[in-house]
Amino acid sequence: MTASAALSHSPLDGSLFASLRELLGARLSTAAAICAQHGKDESYHTPYSPDAVVFAHNTDEVSAIVKLCAEYKTPVIAFGAGTSLEGHVAALAGGICIDMSEMNRVLRVNAQDLDAIVEAGVTRKQLNEHLRDTGLFFPIDPGADASLGGMAATRASGTNAVRYGTMRENVLTMTVVLADGRVIRTARRARKSAAGYDLTRLFVGSEGTLGIITELTVRLYGIPEAISAAVCAFPNLEGAVDTVILTIQSGIPVARIELLDEIQMAAINKYSKLDHQVAPTLFFEFHGTPGGVAEQAEMVKAIAGDYGGDDFRWATTPEQRSKLWQARHDAYYAALALRPGSKGLATDVCVPISRLAECIGETKRDLAASSIPYALVGHAGDGNFHLVFMLDPDRPEELAEANRLNERMVNRALAMEGTSTGEHGVGYGKMDFLIAEHGEAVSVMRKIKLALDPDGILNPGKIIRI
Amino acid sequence: MTASAALSHSPLDGSLFASLRELLGARLSTAAAICAQHGKDESYHTPYSPDAVVFAHNTDEVSAIVKLCAEYKTPVIAFGAGTSLEGHVAALAGGICIDMSEMNRVLRVNAQDLDAIVEAGVTRKQLNEHLRDTGLFFPIDPGADASLGGMAATRASGTNAVRYGTMRENVLTMTVVLADGRVIRTARRARKSAAGYDLTRLFVGSEGTLGIITELTVRLYGIPEAISAAVCAFPNLEGAVDTVILTIQSGIPVARIELLDEIQMAAINKYSKLDHQVAPTLFFEFHGTPGGVAEQAEMVKAIAGDYGGDDFRWATTPEQRSKLWQARHDAYYAALALRPGSKGLATDVCVPISRLAECIGETKRDLAASSIPYALVGHAGDGNFHLVFMLDPDRPEELAEANRLNERMVNRALAMEGTSTGEHGVGYGKMDFLIAEHGEAVSVMRKIKLALDPDGILNPGKIIRI
Repeated sequence: MTASAALSHSPLDGSLFASLRELLGARLSTAAAICAQHGKDESYHTPYSPDAVVFAHNTDEVSAIVKLCAEYKTPVIAFGAGTSLEGHVAALAGGICIDMSEMNRVLRVNAQDLDAIVEAGVTRKQLNEHLRDTGLFFPIDPGADASLGGMAATRASGTNAVRYGTMRENVLTMTVVLADGRVIRTARRARKSAAGYDLTRLFVGSEGTLGIITELTVRLYGIPEAISAAVCAFPNLEGAVDTVILTIQSGIPVARIELLDEIQMAAINKYSKLDHQVAPTLFFEFHGTPGGVAEQAEMVKAIAGDYGGDDFRWATTPEQRSKLWQARHDAYYAALALRPGSKGLATDVCVPISRLAECIGETKRDLAASSIPYALVGHAGDGNFHLVFMLDPDRPEELAEANRLNERMVNRALAMEGTSTGEHGVGYGKMDFLIAEHGEAVSVMRKIKLALDPDGILNPGKIIRI
Repeated sequence: MTASAALSHSPLDGSLFASLRELLGARLSTAAAICAQHGKDESYHTPYSPDAVVFAHNTDEVSAIVKLCAEYKTPVIAFGAGTSLEGHVAALAGGICIDMSEMNRVLRVNAQDLDAIVEAGVTRKQLNEHLRDTGLFFPIDPGADASLGGMAATRASGTNAVRYGTMRENVLTMTVVLADGRVIRTARRARKSAAGYDLTRLFVGSEGTLGIITELTVRLYGIPEAISAAVCAFPNLEGAVDTVILTIQSGIPVARIELLDEIQMAAINKYSKLDHQVAPTLFFEFHGTPGGVAEQAEMVKAIAGDYGGDDFRWATTPEQRSKLWQARHDAYYAALALRPGSKGLATDVCVPISRLAECIGETKRDLAASSIPYALVGHAGDGNFHLVFMLDPDRPEELAEANRLNERMVNRALAMEGTSTGEHGVGYGKMDFLIAEHGEAVSVMRKIKLALDPDGILNPGKIIRI
């Protein structure tokens, strides 16, 4: 994506600045380094700095900030942990960035209801740390230690989604500040409801373009009585993919089933100092009762065996498991480390599971003609996989080629009834794909955007052009 | 609800009628009996006939009908199986009812992807019958043999929701005709996506007020290797409710856990010719591997025993199970049969599980002062329960009292962070409760309604007043 993503940008109004200063004192910054840090995420997309960054402490403050921005028609962008991958926080038209990281209180754990109420800046690891003595956990795990508000805003998922769902399924209700500063609750805390339009699901995945999430109630789960994890190498990628497909089709409730190609395995061996076989590999995790876990593992082993999988290498202690999954989570950084100094471009298609082998196969054949190094890793149980292209930032032709390969991948996935983004979101990187994917339905999204944010101040230039 | 729910009603325009006749021929009816049948559901709410009923055969026809209605600003209401409970299909402002029952083709079963594409008029029993030889089933089961389009439109759930979720979790994508007749797909068929606003979840539960669902892709599940069902009676309602709560809190993946009070048990014994103990009772169903089902049942038996539950009465053969659940599904009719000639008013609150015992207890105390007969039945695992008041239609004071009791129940549930409707929806019966429940958020719903249906032709007078 080139600098042309920038939108027209008015300088920050002096009266707005003075009002924000009065409201927030030292928690308003225009320091170039602070602004730069808040205009970039972990992607290759060109960063754009906001004009100022404010550090909010509660919903009322966010409401007051948004009211002021609305008055001056000034863009306002929420910032969680900055771990997004499609330029979500880039201030394309300048404006005010609201940093949510100091809104990081776990407000209430309703252990009996298996839910927790948190401020938007609480990260997933922080929540799980907080829950340590309760026997409960929050499963959604995109790898990065993202904020829960940011995860809701991008409809994040990750390795556990095959069993526990995505943020779509795991947010019960949210407090949201609207474009005019009013505050709403999207729903009650009941597990289900048929009371009107599903505003919770509308704001989940809206990437800060319809409102700013300040608090959310998320579902928790009992820590399973038994957990075991295993690694299984295959002679070829097809065998690994077919194992995933048959496991899902058999309805085996695996908690995690992750696919890594041989390049990715070499990368994590090196980066995380491991000694796994350098071959297409599946990482599994099983949750349940001791009997249930054993049963699941037996069934999956039998399937893997039929496709040439070798013996399971078990990670049974919490330490071994933690090491295994940390290595999986570091896959992106491990891939980049294979080519020192490189920047990553991560693709994110997701297809119906019946098309997964075909989609990966065609993609690999297409890539054979390319010279850009890449690694493949994926939440294969959902039909979702990523390539990480390791790009030389000094060679713009590599970025152009990776973009072409990605575009062909997206079109391939769309032709297979899949989506351009399984979990990373649209940001400003995938707006054109959105049109290819949804066609006429994008006009409905646009109408909703205009109805809820008529002046277009909320995270402008993301998801849809208005 | 009184006749005051009617909205202003213009007579059907002659040119519109002529155009519809040209389009649909004999599939357009203005016969009084047909119109009357299409303006009423299964509830106590006053029915309102549409001016004409059309029987659509495909999405293009629905699109053409809606385009014509848009041109003449004439109300248009979709009709599935007519089994809703809050006056959803009442033509408060007259207009055209589109009967979807002849759009009843199962278009494609994607067995490998565990989903099926159906026209909106396919009923849940029809789909399961169609799936008979595939080893798959569609779990959502509101009791009535509702159409899948109608179930999506009201965000239906039922006895299996505690394990499999509601229509919210089980619709992957839909074809929807918008208020101007344009046709959109709400999403791709991939299991997850982060590509823009979640239009699927927006239209699920929108009760025909934002668009008309003509096709939908629903999730399927493998029929479990083992299924067993059991009945357990308790000395008092508290013991039964506490058993539900602890079962859910323990994370035991029961497929069904249904609560019936002693009145309801007497009713189904009589109506379905059964001989269950007349006491507060739980109906269970367990799904899984043979070992897993045995394990779940043992855990639940132990919990029930602690709360005074008697021995489980097992229903192990498919025939026994089918008889058991048919009796549960007939609970509403069984209750009404206790008072011949009565009409039912069904309440539908849902609270966080930790408040369920308190909510039911307070409700029962409130009811002690009332003389209207009622029975209690509920999807207790979701925190959702219903009272059926059996009303003498010749005594309007009974309806008034039942409405007062229901209002107190809703306010009680809202005070406990619950919802006014777990699964029946809003229709025209619960619009006032919606405001009590969502406050300011209703204005967001209104903005969305106005953005997508500016002339208010789609099912006017439902969910929100515009």
